[in-house]
Order: sequence, then C-alpha cells, then structure tokens
Amino acid sequence: MKVGFIGLGNMGQAMAGNLLKAGHELTVYNRTRSAADQLEQAGAKVADSASSAAHNAEVLITMLANDAAVEATILSEEGYSTLETLKQGAIHVSMSTISVALSQKLAKAHQAAGQAYLAAPVFGRPDAAAAAKLWIVAGGESELIERCRPLFDAMGQGVLTVGEEPWTANLVKLTGNFMIVSMLEALSEAFALMQKSGVEPQQFLEIVNTALFKSPLYEKYGSIIVEERYEPASFKLNLGLKDVRLVLEAAEKAAVPMPLASLIRDQFLSGVARGHGEIDWAGLGRVSAENAGISPLT
Amino acid sequence: MKVGFIGLGNMGQAMAGNLLKAGHELTVYNRTRSAADQLEQAGAKVADSASSAAHNAEVLITMLANDAAVEATILSEEGYSTLETLKQGAIHVSMSTISVALSQKLAKAHQAAGQAYLAAPVFGRPDAAAAAKLWIVAGGESELIERCRPLFDAMGQGVLTVGEEPWTANLVKLTGNFMIVSMLEALSEAFALMQKSGVEPQQFLEIVNTALFKSPLYEKYGSIIVEERYEPASFKLNLGLKDVRLVLEAAEKAAVPMPLASLIRDQFLSGVARGHGEIDWAGLGRVSAENAGISPLT
Amino acid sequence: MKVGFIGLGNMGQAMAGNLLKAGHELTVYNRTRSAADQLEQAGAKVADSASSAAHNAEVLITMLANDAAVEATILSEEGYSTLETLKQGAIHVSMSTISVALSQKLAKAHQAAGQAYLAAPVFGRPDAAAAAKLWIVAGGESELIERCRPLFDAMGQGVLTVGEEPWTANLVKLTGNFMIVSMLEALSEAFALMQKSGVEPQQFLEIVNTALFKSPLYEKYGSIIVEERYEPASFKLNLGLKDVRLVLEAAEKAAVPMPLASLIRDQFLSGVARGHGEIDWAGLGRVSAENAGISPLT
Amino acid sequence: MKVGFIGLGNMGQAMAGNLLKAGHELTVYNRTRSAADQLEQAGAKVADSASSAAHNAEVLITMLANDAAVEATILSEEGYSTLETLKQGAIHVSMSTISVALSQKLAKAHQAAGQAYLAAPVFGRPDAAAAAKLWIVAGGESELIERCRPLFDAMGQGVLTVGEEPWTANLVKLTGNFMIVSMLEALSEAFALMQKSGVEPQQFLEIVNTALFKSPLYEKYGSIIVEERYEPASFKLNLGLKDVRLVLEAAEKAAVPMPLASLIRDQFLSGVARGHGEIDWAGLGRVSAENAGISPLT
Repeated sequence: MKVGFIGLGNMGQAMAGNLLKAGHELTVYNRTRSAADQLEQAGAKVADSASSAAHNAEVLITMLANDAAVEATILSEEGYSTLETLKQGAIHVSMSTISVALSQKLAKAHQAAGQAYLAAPVFGRPDAAAAAKLWIVAGGESELIERCRPLFDAMGQGVLTVGEEPWTANLVKLTGNFMIVSMLEALSEAFALMQKSGVEPQQFLEIVNTALFKSPLYEKYGSIIVEERYEPASFKLNLGLKDVRLVLEAAEKAAVPMPLASLIRDQFLSGVARGHGEIDWAGLGRVSAENAGISPLT
Repeated sequence: MKVGFIGLGNMGQAMAGNLLKAGHELTVYNRTRSAADQLEQAGAKVADSASSAAHNAEVLITMLANDAAVEATILSEEGYSTLETLKQGAIHVSMSTISVALSQKLAKAHQAAGQAYLAAPVFGRPDAAAAAKLWIVAGGESELIERCRPLFDAMGQGVLTVGEEPWTANLVKLTGNFMIVSMLEALSEAFALMQKSGVEPQQFLEIVNTALFKSPLYEKYGSIIVEERYEPASFKLNLGLKDVRLVLEAAEKAAVPMPLASLIRDQFLSGVARGHGEIDWAGLGRVSAENAGISPLT
Repeated sequence: MKVGFIGLGNMGQAMAGNLLKAGHELTVYNRTRSAADQLEQAGAKVADSASSAAHNAEVLITMLANDAAVEATILSEEGYSTLETLKQGAIHVSMSTISVALSQKLAKAHQAAGQAYLAAPVFGRPDAAAAAKLWIVAGGESELIERCRPLFDAMGQGVLTVGEEPWTANLVKLTGNFMIVSMLEALSEAFALMQKSGVEPQQFLEIVNTALFKSPLYEKYGSIIVEERYEPASFKLNLGLKDVRLVLEAAEKAAVPMPLASLIRDQFLSGVARGHGEIDWAGLGRVSAENAGISPLT
Repeated sequence: MKVGFIGLGNMGQAMAGNLLKAGHELTVYNRTRSAADQLEQAGAKVADSASSAAHNAEVLITMLANDAAVEATILSEEGYSTLETLKQGAIHVSMSTISVALSQKLAKAHQAAGQAYLAAPVFGRPDAAAAAKLWIVAGGESELIERCRPLFDAMGQGVLTVGEEPWTANLVKLTGNFMIVSMLEALSEAFALMQKSGVEPQQFLEIVNTALFKSPLYEKYGSIIVEERYEPASFKLNLGLKDVRLVLEAAEKAAVPMPLASLIRDQFLSGVARGHGEIDWAGLGRVSAENAGISPLT
C-alpha cells in the first residue's frame, strides 16, 4: 500500500521501519529531517512537508507527541493543510495518544472532506514497537479496519477493536494509561512504607509478583521504581500528567468522578513542580519518597 | 507434630483439614462448636476452650477474624489465658491478618512467657486454602520457620520469608492487600467511565488483560466487578476497610503518607455507610457506579 | 459616561440598573430580549445585537455566564464581531467569571485592535448586586481603572485592585470561589459527622460561628446546608464545578498541585452525576450526606 | 470551690491562674514541678502526685496533652490511681482535647466509681486562656454544668453546651479543629497558586478578608502563613495530625467518609515526614509550598 507516515520519534521510526520491511511504499515526514535518514536508506521517500507526505497516500498514518502537534499537522489553517492535500477516499489512521475531543473533531473534518478516519493508538514502548509487538486499539468502521489490517499486522502483535466511533479507541488508550499509573502510584506508596519500616522494597516486590499479580508489567515497573531507574525516560512524567488530564477531561464530560485519577494528577504535578517532568513516569516513586521524607527535594 | 488450631472459619477449616491429611496430630477449637464437626470426623480432637487447645501443642496456630479475636484468645486477662497454658518452648504461629501493633505485643508477651512466636499470614482465598495453594508470608527467626515448614508445606504452595521481626510479615500482608484494593479502585473507576461513554466494560477488561497486565488477579477481580458478582462475598468489604485502616495506622507510625490508601478507605467507608459492608470488597465497583450516577443508592 | 452593557442575567440586570441610577448613558443587550424590558423603562437604550451595543460605547461591560458566551460575543469570527465594532480607545471591562486563558486572549485581541481591556470580576450574589454592594476585583492598568471608577462606584462597595495584568483579577476571583467551596466542603463533612453522631448540626454551626470563625459567610452558607435550602439556587452547583475546573487549569499551568480543589471537583462531579447540577453549590452538603448514607440517592 | 487541677502547660497554667484570681481554692499538679512555681506564689497548693491533687477536690480539672496522658493520670492501674482517690460525688471535668473513645471510657469509669464526669474542652490559644477569653464546649448533665459554671466563668468568655453525653463535647471540639485545618489547607493551596502566578499572597489575603470571610481567624492564620511565622508554634503540627486522626476515628465509627479530613491528614503526615512536626500547624502552608516547588525540602 501507499502509505504516508508523519512523526518519526522513537515510536514512529520503529513503526515506519516495520511497514517498510513488510513491503509497503512509504513516504515519511518529520519536522526534524535527520530522524528520517535511516528510513531513507531503507527505501522510504522523504517528504519535505506533512502535506506532501499525505499527497499520494492511500493511508496516512500520524504518530505525534500530543494534540497540538496532530492538530497543527492535520487541521492548521495556515498555508496548505494536510487535510486538503489528502485524497478523497484515503484513510487517516491517527495512532498518537490524543484527546477524545480532538479525535471527534478529526472525525468530523475528514468526513466533511470526503476522507476516512480511524483512531488506532497503541500500547507498548519503543522496544515493543521495534519488535513489531505493539497492541493496536482500533476504533472506527470495521471495513476500514480490515483495509488497514496488513499495516497493523506489520507493526503489532494484535488488533483490539473497540467500536464504530473512532474516539472510543482514544478513550480506551487513555484509560489504559490510567490503569498503568494507578499501578505505579500503588507501588510507590507501598515501597515508601516498606523502606521506612525496614523491609526491603525488592523483597516486597517479589512477594507481590509471586503471590499476587504475576504480571510482567508489575515486574518491569516495580523494578524501575525499586532501582530508581528513572533516566533515560521511556515515557516522560510530564506526558503521564498530560494523559491523566485527558482522562479527567473525558470523565468530566461523561460526569464520572475519578478520584484516583485526580490524586495521580496531583502527584504528577508535584513531580513537575519539583523538577521531575523529564524523568520516567514511574518517577511517581520519587514523589512518594519525597513526601515520606526519604529523598530530600533538590 | 502436635498442633493446636484455633479459628475454624472458611480459611481455618480448610487449612486445618490439610494439616490432618498430612498426618499431623490436631486439636482444634472454634467458638461455634459446629464448625469443628467435619474435622472431628476426619480425626481431629476438639477442645472446649482455646486454652485447652493450646495445652499440649508444640505449635499453636491461630487463624481468626481480627485483632480483637486474637487478643481475646491469647492475651485475655480474664480467667485462664491461652498464653499461660502454652508450654515453654512451644511456638505460636499467628496466621490471621492482624495489625503490626498487635503482632509486636504478641511477640513481647510470648518472649516474656518463654515461648516462641511467628507471624505467618497468608495470601489466597478459601478455594486456595482448600487446595493447599496458599502463599505463606513468614516473619520471625529462620530456625523457627524451618521447624514449622512441614506445616506450611501442608497448607500452602510456598513460604515467602520477610525478616527476623515477626511483625514485618504482618506489614507485608496488609500492604499486599493495599495493592489489591488499589487495583480494585482503578478498575472500578475505569469501568464507570467506560459504561457512561458507551464502551463495554467487558471489552475494556479484555484489552487491559491482553495488552497490559496479563495478570490472573486482574482477570478474576475484573470480571467480578463487570458482572457485579458481589454476593456471596469471598472477602467482605468491611474487612477490606479494616485492613486499609491497619495499613494507614502502620504508615502513620512510620510517617509515610499514603494518599491512595486514604482514598480507598473513604470509598470503603461510603460503601459501608450505604449498606454494602457485607458484600465482596470488589464492591468498590458499586461505590464508583453510585458516585457516577449509574447505580442509584437504595 | 456612554456605556454598553451586554448580559442581563440576575447579576447583570441589577448592575446595569445601578449604572442608570448613577446617571450613565446605557445601551444594553441581552440574547433574550425580555430581560431588557425593565431597564428600557428606566431609560436604557436596547440594542438588537452585541456589536451594536458596543458601537458608541466609551466603556463596554460584559457580564456573561461563561467563557463560551464571552468568546462568542467578543471574538466570534462569524459575522460582524463586537471586537471590530468597538471604537479605538474604548475600554472593554470584562466582569464575568472567566478563565485566565480567555482573559489573556482578550487582552491580546483588544491590544491588537487599539482598544483597552480590564478584567473586573465581582464577589457578591444577586442581592448584593441589587444593593450596589458588590466587591469588584480589578486587574489592568491603574489609569484605566481610575477612568472606570465612577462605574465601579455605582455598582459596588469597593474596588480591590490586583495587578497590571488583567488576568490576575480573574485568577483571584476564581481562587476566591475556591476558598468558598472549601468552606462548603468542610461544613458538609462536619455536618454529616454531627448528624450521624446525634449532635444537632445547627448547634455545631452556632458553636463554630461563636467560638471560631465569626464570619457572615459561614453563617449564611452553614444555615443553607443545615436547612437544605438548595433550591432555588443562587449559584448553581454545575457553575461551581466549572469554576473549580478553571482554578485547576490555571494551577496546572503554574505547576501548583491543589489536592483540595481536586477533591471538591470530584464531589461536584458526583453531584452532577446524581442529578444535582441545578441546585445551589452549597449542595455539596447533599453529596456528603449521600456519601454518609444519610440521604438516599434518588 | 475546692478544685484540683492537673496539667500546667501553656494552657493549664493560665486557666489555673484565672481560677485562683476568682477566689477558688486550688491544688495543682504537674509532672514537671517547676511549672507550678508561679501558681504556688499566687496561693495554690502544690501536690506531689496527681492522686493527691484529686484527694479533697470537689471538682478535679485535667488539662493534659493527649489521650495517653489523661489515661495514665486517671485510669492507670499501677499504684494508687486518681480514679480511686477522687471522692464519691466529686466531678471530673476533662478539658483536654481527647478522643471520643477515651471520653466514653472515662464516663463509664467515673460512673462505676460513684463520681461525676463532664467533658469541657476549649477553643482558644494560650493568649485567650490568659485573658479568660476561652470558649468552653461542655458536654454532660446540665445540673453538673451549672455546678461548674463559676469555674467556667472564671476561665472563659462563654459556655457552649452540647448534649447530655459528655463525649459529644469532645467530638465537637475535634470537629472544630477540623474546620480550622480545612481553612489552613485552603489558604495554603491558594497562596501557592498566587505566588507562582505572580500575585502577592498578602494582597489575595486582604481581598479574601474584605470581600469574603471577614473572619478574625482567617486574618490571623492567613498572615501566619503569608509571613511564614511557623515558629514558635502556638499549636504544633504533630498535634494537628493527632486531632485529625481522632476525627477520622470517630467518623469511621459513625460510618461517615470525610475525604477532606483524610487529605489534611496526609498533608500533615508529609509535614512530619519532612521534619516539620514541631512547627505551627499553619505549617500546612510550608507543605503546599514544597509540593509546588516553591520551598525546597531540607
């Protein structure tokens, strides 16, 4: 398939690479040109603007950092917008973690322009992206999802479909992140208690893994916190803050109180205020340690 | 070994039964006599008081509902107390989920009386107890733990040792329960959001299980909440409240703020106030549903 | 002075009336025309659009319900906007309770259009507006504030100036509302405890007023909650939710965690979810009563 | 009246002095003898034990730091207890801030011993005690309260009666302290927001005082926080923690969730963990400042 791919961060580069390997015809674009070099050597065309990456695409994939980047790329009213460039009948597959509200806005805009739209955010960190082991949460018409399945298969280990409304996939992705940060907060508070009570956090973690959760995610994040491996960040604390805010926004619209999400938002915000915005989101462990007087603030 | 066993609730009965099967000589006691009938048929002696169950024991096991029951049984100053009956050199293995403070008090009392003391609370519900699949968290001198190992092996699938201080095992058990209720709260809030947003909670749960946690505990409790199978309770909501309170007490002594534990305590308390104290502790799902206006209060 | 006045709700009507009484030349506009009838009889001109109310004004006052209304009125790009109508050198005095972000946007827009801008939100309910007893919190250049002082004097009992940046007045107003809802939440929880403990809430309130706060605000709101006089609302619960959200947004931008604001947001959201969005914001008392099992949800 | 007075801290000394001035016959006791010197010069007898201070008293007043001190003084089973010394028909007036549970236990013990019991905790700091300006919250039989009124009149500016059950006065006192710390938390969060937004906290405080609460308590505590006058403490942060814990205990027994009290408990606990236990309880302001990255932890 002819694929345009916009956004070549850690995740995007790996995903685009896997599409190339699977034989798709790729035109990529990234604001910082150098991120495209490796893909160019591997056979991708490199566009000099987002809209020219979209120009001939049957499917346009965006994998960008946040709402602002996606909105600027697709809907910007300055200059020649990507929305106007994209062919009628082409599909925009938005794989970034964006808000429900923006996803709804994109759906409308593409419909008005005679184009199709899927939301397909992913679970998995850069290593999973590189190994084509992402889980793809797809929202939108099932016929469109089927048309994109070869692409999804090249990038992930499975497609989890949600509903006919694309935004439901964004909501599920954001709420999945809420589930992860809830685990991080619980581990962080428990470790602080262990440490000040003279029990090795590592030992507690092993018991939790053996006798309770038996979950690779608890194992991985638990050891990051115990060992304070917060840098380099796989996913930054300030992005965690952003995602929890987006969950809370969606929940407010649905009139659903989520006090645990509110609590974690405040912990993240303390982390940012104390200068930890750029460390890994597991840095909730540091916030709890500081609140318990274990780590002094610096 | 000659074993005294006090407390024949759902858990205790199953555990005592497994000790009998393993060939140990058992004298059991339960306040309500009828709970001992089945064990009597299987070969246990039935004592008519806690202290007479302790009389000839090499190891005295207690498996009772809460601090008050353990304290009344072992330390009561009225009449002839179990503490005084127990032989010098015998070991009291306290397997109940009790507070750190009571565990410390028991350790002192037994030491003063020339007896030994282990804390060995368990992870696992009645079905795990019946199948001898409990995980036993043992705190105390390792030599004592070794002496009791044949008993532990008869009741569980493994012994997880913590430290030389018995109370550390109680702390770990309570904090493990905190980890579980944190998961319950996160699932409850997420499901409420899904339901009011038109996404099937069951579908969200499958995605969470597949793409994120891959944990049997999330699967089990997740489906309890989705299907609202809160009765009969495997572990009652008001006992969950008690355990979170005990975590908070221990954390206050260690000067560790645990805002997530505080939040869950308040949710449990709302549950009790609304009449849900006797349903399963996964009933946090009902509390969230009520707070989101999904289930009306009755 | 020649004054345009847009927004004739409970507050706006009373404020405009006081300007008329003070002899100012008023052109008023309200989306629903009938709200202007009384003012017309009292001598005001009635405009048939927001922009025509602005047309000849030296000072344009807006007193609208929320960000959306102010933005639509002043900045809307559809049709002939009020911004374009307003004369160079005229002052827009925004007295609505709006977000910091919108206030900053208005400041920029007016500056670009060669107009002046003040933020001057008020403390006080409709009865205070009618009695010209409002407190006006003014942000912006002091020279502009002086020019508007005759108007402020006609509407309020005092002007409290904040800073040269207009948005600081909006922040102060929102944070003042946060102070009020914090009081409401504290009273609500205390009353629930009293009631379930057999102490008359009214008696507790009297003690609090006599021995502690001696504050008319505690007296007024305390008795509203004790007597459950939530309807008709002086200020609706769902507007309280909006204001707390705006505080949290401003605080997030400043990287300031406000866990008490987060808590109240969740209580308001439960209130909305349970159908109390239209009652008075003191209805936090109902939310606490429901959470304590005192009032059943309906 | 013949009065025994136990507990001569900042509060107790001032209160006992006022009883002397009013002509009552005082026998005082304090663990540290030197605290009694000044009262001795003013005419008080000084007892060498709590029980001998109680020996001939018609009314025995206790004004001690916490539950443990009151329990040890009145109920201790070691040696000759004060409870046994007190005459039949004498009244124990417990003016300390103690738990509901201990107040209930004291009521029972005195009844069994043929003595009377009142709970009469006070609102007011040492300066109010010195000026005989305390507010006394009295719980118990009204006939007993009348008998003690001359004493109350000598120490305070008014008696606020609650109910026939003495413990209701303790609950009201504790809940009053909850109201105060709720104000402190609200002010602390608001000031942090102001400071990071470039608005002078002092200016915000003036606006809040003028346009909103008009309360001496907001004025006093607000300026303590703005000026960071946390030392010397009038009332220590770790005592604030204790009182909030006692409120939460009473509320748990009544099945009343108080999420704001939980939140403040966690803020206090962070304060203690960071080494602020001995500063004034208004030090919640420091905790918020640290959480917002304004004050670094030391």
